[in-house]
Amino acid sequence: MAQKDDCPFCQIARGEMDTELLLDEENLVAFEDLDPQAPVHVLIIPRDHVTSDTDLSPEMLKQLIDATQTIAQNQGVAESGYATRINHGEDAGQEVEHVHLHVVGGRELGFP
Amino acid sequence: MAQKDDCPFCQIARGEMDTELLLDEENLVAFEDLDPQAPVHVLIIPRDHVTSDTDLSPEMLKQLIDATQTIAQNQGVAESGYATRINHGEDAGQEVEHVHLHVVGGRELGFP
Repeated sequence: MAQKDDCPFCQIARGEMDTELLLDEENLVAFEDLDPQAPVHVLIIPRDHVTSDTDLSPEMLKQLIDATQTIAQNQGVAESGYATRINHGEDAGQEVEHVHLHVVGGRELGFP
Repeated sequence: MAQKDDCPFCQIARGEMDTELLLDEENLVAFEDLDPQAPVHVLIIPRDHVTSDTDLSPEMLKQLIDATQTIAQNQGVAESGYATRINHGEDAGQEVEHVHLHVVGGRELGFP
């Protein structure tokens, strides 16, 4: 596992933070966003410290996308609808340099 | 190629619509959103009619994610930042039942 000591998401993946894991799988974990923007706002991250979605392997991408559906089902928004979002850089508000997929739902979501 | 006759995105992929293709690759195409929500708002779709992102193969997911980076670079927002978004269902405003990745940038993007 390639991890980065001072990355907050690596720390969550290692279980060093007081963060409830909604998914705790071999290659990924999921947890609630610390500053939720909707009734459902979950982050899904690879355990490995990967900074760009283009550096993820095809198999890891597949696992992450499948996890978004699992989260949507577990959180009760699979039918009502949800958005999967990956932010890149400053304009998009990316705050942590560790790839994370936002799963957002529970209300109507336009474009920002 | 599995396509659906009356799907507008399949029609775009087949070149039947008067839509400029920003990417025209073997397995995917990209084009501007008809109702853009930001200075840059591009849709990337697999040529095949796939209704759910969880039905995409790992290799197709990889090609689509790589295409988001190509579009961001070509549109000049790779440095300033952009969001990649997949909408699922009504709450998220999904209008076409053919998987599409939104690439949105060119301004600050909060959450909706």
